[in-house]
Amino acid sequence: MEKVRIGIIGIGGMGTSHAKNIVAGKVPNAELTAVCDINAERLEWAKQSFGDRVQRFDQADAFFQSQAFDAVLVATTHYDHPGLAIQALNYGYHTLIEKPAGVYTKAVREMNEVAQQSDKVFAIMYNQRTNPVYQKLKDLIDSGELGDLKRSIWIITNWYRPQSYYDAGGWRATWSGEGGGVLLNQDPHQLDLWQWMYGMPKRVRAFMSFGKYHNIEVEDDVTAYVEYENGATGLFVTTTGEAPGTNRLEVSGDRGKVVIEDDKLTFWRLRVSEREFNREFKGGFGSPECWKCEIPTPGDNSQHIGIMNDWVNAILHGTKLIAPGVEGIKGLTISNAMHLSAWTDSWVDIPFDEDLFYEKLKERIDQSTFKKNVHNVTLDVSGTH
Amino acid sequence: MEKVRIGIIGIGGMGTSHAKNIVAGKVPNAELTAVCDINAERLEWAKQSFGDRVQRFDQADAFFQSQAFDAVLVATTHYDHPGLAIQALNYGYHTLIEKPAGVYTKAVREMNEVAQQSDKVFAIMYNQRTNPVYQKLKDLIDSGELGDLKRSIWIITNWYRPQSYYDAGGWRATWSGEGGGVLLNQDPHQLDLWQWMYGMPKRVRAFMSFGKYHNIEVEDDVTAYVEYENGATGLFVTTTGEAPGTNRLEVSGDRGKVVIEDDKLTFWRLRVSEREFNREFKGGFGSPECWKCEIPTPGDNSQHIGIMNDWVNAILHGTKLIAPGVEGIKGLTISNAMHLSAWTDSWVDIPFDEDLFYEKLKERIDQSTFKKNVHNVTLDVSGTH
Repeated sequence: MEKVRIGIIGIGGMGTSHAKNIVAGKVPNAELTAVCDINAERLEWAKQSFGDRVQRFDQADAFFQSQAFDAVLVATTHYDHPGLAIQALNYGYHTLIEKPAGVYTKAVREMNEVAQQSDKVFAIMYNQRTNPVYQKLKDLIDSGELGDLKRSIWIITNWYRPQSYYDAGGWRATWSGEGGGVLLNQDPHQLDLWQWMYGMPKRVRAFMSFGKYHNIEVEDDVTAYVEYENGATGLFVTTTGEAPGTNRLEVSGDRGKVVIEDDKLTFWRLRVSEREFNREFKGGFGSPECWKCEIPTPGDNSQHIGIMNDWVNAILHGTKLIAPGVEGIKGLTISNAMHLSAWTDSWVDIPFDEDLFYEKLKERIDQSTFKKNVHNVTLDVSGTH
Repeated sequence: MEKVRIGIIGIGGMGTSHAKNIVAGKVPNAELTAVCDINAERLEWAKQSFGDRVQRFDQADAFFQSQAFDAVLVATTHYDHPGLAIQALNYGYHTLIEKPAGVYTKAVREMNEVAQQSDKVFAIMYNQRTNPVYQKLKDLIDSGELGDLKRSIWIITNWYRPQSYYDAGGWRATWSGEGGGVLLNQDPHQLDLWQWMYGMPKRVRAFMSFGKYHNIEVEDDVTAYVEYENGATGLFVTTTGEAPGTNRLEVSGDRGKVVIEDDKLTFWRLRVSEREFNREFKGGFGSPECWKCEIPTPGDNSQHIGIMNDWVNAILHGTKLIAPGVEGIKGLTISNAMHLSAWTDSWVDIPFDEDLFYEKLKERIDQSTFKKNVHNVTLDVSGTH
């Protein structure tokens, strides 16, 4: 195989953006050979844009049976990610799914079981893992520079969305269409990065408002407190209702503190560890000597294009993936635990009861009386996700 | 009266600092005429330092009966603040109490009732209210520049204390001696400023660790989530176990966001309110025009000396107090609610059951098996509180 032939299923906002990038040559070892969508207008757009060199399908089964490609990019709505990934893998296609991995972990666990038995390359579009500042923070944590972790606070409130965003798609911000709000649509990257750098929490206590700032039925404001096995704590604060919002990650450990803000990483490094200072120092008032270090974070943030190239390289050359598809369940587990905690107004231990989560989600879908005032529009998402 | 004659009861760390400031002439319209302490060494220190122009007492009753002063500064351990303030006011002295107002609101409420029936000037050492950055933020909130409030996050984790700090006094960081840890000793200023600028929350959910980073029985790590009447939320994160720690206050409202960090106030001002933009904008992706404004905060932070002068001026000239003593109950109410929430692992509505709080505190005092390895030392607190 010289070039990987790619079929994209779902050419709404994100799928369209990926299709354009591939056709523009930004994934040199790949070519777009097919697209699939149930929306006739989107297929017409594909015909106008790409002509007949890209096959078009309006049904998933025909798409998968076509063998018009080697690899499938799944960019449909969230609920369909696990089912379509399972189909793709079972047909023998390499598979890349958009985030989130799915809406509830039960379905994602089934997808992972199929993926683990497949020899195909299975990846997820966690395109923030290519960001050098988060790679560097992971490096500082993994290499022990920060020492034992104490606290992590991520204020990620710069996902502002006005009402017209929600009005642009009938599936958006509904329990039946997305299965959640800001946690399912905007935050999967941060939830993944959080566990990627910091590990999984052992329990979660979350507080949410549903439709606080918008005419929607799902959450648009979340505050979540978590505890880790070693006693460290964490906070995750997010909303689509604040402008201008903040994206500030603070991580503290026994050997200092890191803050990432404005895409810049600063490390306040303690010369001796705090635990050691605490034991040894006899002066009453005092604190460990601390150096403010500006840490270089070289490299470009290649984002979606980086993840597509990484996937294609893994297919062609067997290289290790930046974002293996089976890891998609981790961020979703935190997300589901937050929802379950808010719905039950109580602590949720991880792992939680996946059947209970699904039951509670289903209740919300079944009891929804929400009718959207929809203007179906394919939003230009370039640079937003 | 030309000069206010002041008696200080309690010349440990803070009382000593105040005494020195008065004797050094930093409160020009006041003079120190008496001190009281149960510790003979501290009285000997006063004798060596001030000679016989400052009377010395080793019993509160004799001190109050002496009429050797017009006004009393109460700088004993926290538990005694309300009782001594009641005594001082009943004897007809103007009264300034150190923070916190007390340990439990029930006692502070009794103090406030006495104060409200007294014609004497009753103040509290909330010396951070003199800080121009917090005064400016209060101004921005009160004048409507920030619009309706949405969220407030105070990360105040720069109260680092090593074990030797706790070992320097037998009363420190015990349920019987202080009635709490970081919330009672270090945070009263921030808890007061928080409610002073932002108002009182209506309910609280807090998470604490007791003796997490130190050999103490009280809390040294706190994360608290609060909700306000208008739907706004808040977070208060504090510890004495992190170095270098952070002091960052973020407040967001319908018209923008303010961040105070490194004693600098930055206002991200929206040209139109977010609520209006949300209704009017039809473009899907987009956010209100935002101006980053560096707001001047002129003036010195006069701190303890400022509060003492303010109190003395109110006594001499009837001016309005920066920090009226009766307002001490507000920050303590939030503090008590946080403790009660952590102790009961549940929500606490404000106002809460004060008898229940006292009962739970009493349980901790009675069941304490904590024995401290104490080296009694009077710490030099200049510049620390």
